[in-house]
Amino acid sequence: MPTILGQNQYGKAENRVVRITRDGATHHIKDLNVSVSLSGDMDEVHYSGSNAHVLPTDTTKNTVYAFAKEHGIESAEQFGIHLARHFVTSQEPIRTARIRIEEYTWERIGTAGEDEHSFVRQGQETRLTQITYDGSSWEVVSGLKDLTVMNSTNSEFWGYVKDKYTTLPEAYDRILATEVSARWRFNWSDDEQETPDWETSYAQVKKHMLQAFAETYSLSLQQTLYQMGSRIIENRDEIDEVRFSLPNKHHFLVDLEPFGLKNDNEVYFAADRPYGLIEATVLRDGVEPGIPVDLTNL
Amino acid sequence: MPTILGQNQYGKAENRVVRITRDGATHHIKDLNVSVSLSGDMDEVHYSGSNAHVLPTDTTKNTVYAFAKEHGIESAEQFGIHLARHFVTSQEPIRTARIRIEEYTWERIGTAGEDEHSFVRQGQETRLTQITYDGSSWEVVSGLKDLTVMNSTNSEFWGYVKDKYTTLPEAYDRILATEVSARWRFNWSDDEQETPDWETSYAQVKKHMLQAFAETYSLSLQQTLYQMGSRIIENRDEIDEVRFSLPNKHHFLVDLEPFGLKNDNEVYFAADRPYGLIEATVLRDGVEPGIPVDLTNL
Amino acid sequence: MPTILGQNQYGKAENRVVRITRDGATHHIKDLNVSVSLSGDMDEVHYSGSNAHVLPTDTTKNTVYAFAKEHGIESAEQFGIHLARHFVTSQEPIRTARIRIEEYTWERIGTAGEDEHSFVRQGQETRLTQITYDGSSWEVVSGLKDLTVMNSTNSEFWGYVKDKYTTLPEAYDRILATEVSARWRFNWSDDEQETPDWETSYAQVKKHMLQAFAETYSLSLQQTLYQMGSRIIENRDEIDEVRFSLPNKHHFLVDLEPFGLKNDNEVYFAADRPYGLIEATVLRDGVEPGIPVDLTNL
Amino acid sequence: MPTILGQNQYGKAENRVVRITRDGATHHIKDLNVSVSLSGDMDEVHYSGSNAHVLPTDTTKNTVYAFAKEHGIESAEQFGIHLARHFVTSQEPIRTARIRIEEYTWERIGTAGEDEHSFVRQGQETRLTQITYDGSSWEVVSGLKDLTVMNSTNSEFWGYVKDKYTTLPEAYDRILATEVSARWRFNWSDDEQETPDWETSYAQVKKHMLQAFAETYSLSLQQTLYQMGSRIIENRDEIDEVRFSLPNKHHFLVDLEPFGLKNDNEVYFAADRPYGLIEATVLRDGVEPGIPVDLTNL
Repeated sequence: MPTILGQNQYGKAENRVVRITRDGATHHIKDLNVSVSLSGDMDEVHYSGSNAHVLPTDTTKNTVYAFAKEHGIESAEQFGIHLARHFVTSQEPIRTARIRIEEYTWERIGTAGEDEHSFVRQGQETRLTQITYDGSSWEVVSGLKDLTVMNSTNSEFWGYVKDKYTTLPEAYDRILATEVSARWRFNWSDDEQETPDWETSYAQVKKHMLQAFAETYSLSLQQTLYQMGSRIIENRDEIDEVRFSLPNKHHFLVDLEPFGLKNDNEVYFAADRPYGLIEATVLRDGVEPGIPVDLTNL
Repeated sequence: MPTILGQNQYGKAENRVVRITRDGATHHIKDLNVSVSLSGDMDEVHYSGSNAHVLPTDTTKNTVYAFAKEHGIESAEQFGIHLARHFVTSQEPIRTARIRIEEYTWERIGTAGEDEHSFVRQGQETRLTQITYDGSSWEVVSGLKDLTVMNSTNSEFWGYVKDKYTTLPEAYDRILATEVSARWRFNWSDDEQETPDWETSYAQVKKHMLQAFAETYSLSLQQTLYQMGSRIIENRDEIDEVRFSLPNKHHFLVDLEPFGLKNDNEVYFAADRPYGLIEATVLRDGVEPGIPVDLTNL
Repeated sequence: MPTILGQNQYGKAENRVVRITRDGATHHIKDLNVSVSLSGDMDEVHYSGSNAHVLPTDTTKNTVYAFAKEHGIESAEQFGIHLARHFVTSQEPIRTARIRIEEYTWERIGTAGEDEHSFVRQGQETRLTQITYDGSSWEVVSGLKDLTVMNSTNSEFWGYVKDKYTTLPEAYDRILATEVSARWRFNWSDDEQETPDWETSYAQVKKHMLQAFAETYSLSLQQTLYQMGSRIIENRDEIDEVRFSLPNKHHFLVDLEPFGLKNDNEVYFAADRPYGLIEATVLRDGVEPGIPVDLTNL
Repeated sequence: MPTILGQNQYGKAENRVVRITRDGATHHIKDLNVSVSLSGDMDEVHYSGSNAHVLPTDTTKNTVYAFAKEHGIESAEQFGIHLARHFVTSQEPIRTARIRIEEYTWERIGTAGEDEHSFVRQGQETRLTQITYDGSSWEVVSGLKDLTVMNSTNSEFWGYVKDKYTTLPEAYDRILATEVSARWRFNWSDDEQETPDWETSYAQVKKHMLQAFAETYSLSLQQTLYQMGSRIIENRDEIDEVRFSLPNKHHFLVDLEPFGLKNDNEVYFAADRPYGLIEATVLRDGVEPGIPVDLTNL
């Protein structure tokens, strides 16, 4: 046989589960998009089509919904841990389970004297987590995407390499804007360790990231990225590594001179494509990296 | 000639303009997507290709950026009024100008003792406005899209028609969720009238709409829609008409009985397609409707 | 009561139905996305929440699937006619039914000596139709979207109005590219008339539209639009009106002079936003227009 | 310093370049979306903001357009090789260049006796390539995405594991449909080797992939995937590895019994989410895998 099977994984992707918890007249929501991916002793289904080792993807979907009832959804991370443990420990052929979850945040519609069951979707970033379990150790990588931020000043870009294709003028006061995609890896890996408080951790990471973005006087987006990453690691002991993919959302100063107008950093064209794309990992000194390099496909 | 030209319009669509206003170290942002559409005496360009009456779409783009400097952007509505007036009054062949604007909201990243130039995009709804001017009267229709709301209880659906294709069981406690697309028409139409306070009006309309959604015990999404519309008109004298397009974002209770579990309105599957689509206009009694019926193409 | 209900409509949107027809070992596919919209005597459901006149949107969904079996899907238009007639004639409160359908085209994967049951989605334009029935007369508007075309020469743009905001240089050889969105209205309106051959009509309209685009030496996109529309009406007796929404997909010649290179209409930047947007109706002389003006929301 | 920099890369993403080549009155198009990603000695820009080693992303954009003129675009792969070689050999701090390209295919609008400069975008799959160069060896991974295929019969699924969450009935005649995302790695890695004929290779890989999909009587999507991959490797000596990400686009047989109808594999509901996701690598026996495992983020 001239060909062989390499790495493979399968499962049900994008199971949309909404869990309502009732605390009297006050309701709580968890709104998740859960993707299950399993791997293990799956050669035969590829070679011959025998499904003898295959738990159907439909079953993995059912399990997501059943576990939402059986275990509740305390946090996306905790829910992913329940699921991953179940698949690896209950099915002999399955050696590794990876659960990816997107979480959408809702805030309350405040109405005086009313019961608390009305919500509006916040719509800012999408929260992410990925839980991987191989039967002995855990890897938890959480993150977010689509968090768009802007500094309207305190950003420069100059002193760069010029070659024969360089036409960009140096900038001493520019807009710096990006749509943050970030992943951070927890150092929790063992059931014997105490688990982090996942909800608090997320809120604090987001806060530190935003503050580092706002407070950094930027000479390059790379510098800002590094500050965002190191701020997280310095403040959150539970996190060892952060990976960012930061598109430089260019805001070009419009040339208004043809119309007899001076544009004193007031009017900008917000461009779509192309965009600079800055990607890097920031690590706690001494740890090995674990987050894959490419968070996007472009 | 067996064919003739009918209604026509042209212009530059989706001009992305960001305007920064500096109040000392405190900056303010307006972030708009402006589409210009002009019509008038344009037969010849269609019949023969003569551009003698055609102001280039590129010029309409330049005008957007120049006006952002010359007039500033106090509100999307006011900015659209400046633009529409300019095109109709400065170019003889242009009889009508329609300006459509999307607005994206930014909130400040609060950092103690820092200058105020750092922002995060709010990401909830997109704010909309459309200004139409024919040289004598104005029509302003504002609105929003992508505002997702949910009531986790206080919604029923029963007592409906049953025919031979009906299988739906009646529901006495269901989730009601929708992604609001709304447009509301102002009764301001004449330069002699005082213009509304566009920013206050928007904030108040959104507030009333959300409160009506939250406070209505719903027997049908149509009923909730009507309450949302009438609440706006009752509370905002400047508005005469509201049009809604409300997809019923179905949340189906998952059947957990095969797993020996009871689902007491706790675990839902959030479905994508198909979805109910409820559309209606609510009018101040005695006024003529002016907002087109179809806000979507499906 | 200070507010009243205006136009309203409801139904199930985006019912995805795939119909396989077996002609021995040769299979045929129809792949549709069907949206149902009903209106009539629906005041009470808005005012009081009474569903006594409401056929559930879920039932309209069931009807789509049942009719795919009962009537088959000869064409999207014919299928829409069956559905619209059913809703209006079977439910007293329903006065008007509008059925919108998107159709996706599949082509065969040719495999020598194999049975014919393998397909690849063509992926070019999406075919559209909209059937409206009020119990006595029919309106059928078909169309397409997302058909992207380009002429790499034989396009000019000059002789236009110049005002103080005009900077665009005249062009004597440019790329003309657009993503066609078109709707055309049939003059069939009565059950007594013979229905058009919907499948042949679509293929011929697309052919004439593409040929008119290719063969027109263009002095403006408006001129090309008019040629595309009039070519259809002149060649297809069953069609009285065509509406186009044509974004001018700008391809900007890149300035390579800073690099010592001459760009002789060879290297272009394909821009996203902003874009010119040219919209117009072409009519058979003497008929009244019926297609709404705005095919997009921008 | 408690944190350090890990892997990093930067460049200009999504440069949209269209290259017209004129062969008399016959024109040829190449339509690409080019993303540049560079890495090397870039610590300082992250740590201190010094751009002394940074070739601006704007320059990498300029280079794409200049190279389209200087070298032409024979194929996406060849164009990427020119670019990658340039960045690595011309800038000392840059050690590795990775060029990712999407390619959009256009076909001619045939018009009798006309010049050949009119095109319609094919719109089927998007063609992909990724070129990586570290100054000594090359890696070329080509591929495609969004190629949707369907077998309307000759697919079964049974004999799988049943646990307490399994409710899926076995299927002996089902629709099998997927939207192919594939990447294949060439064994060309050295300037001394003859380069493959990239255009012929692509056409042949697509042909073999489609034929394997059509001709495989499928007991599982995994089996079909493996047949698709091995067919490519067996027929194309230049390719050593193929990675697939195949969503199982579920087509559920609609239950028409409540309406007194029998659904004999005729009427299907095409579902969106959730979907099975089957991913695997197929390798030429004896080679090491090189394509990353995750082609999507879900």
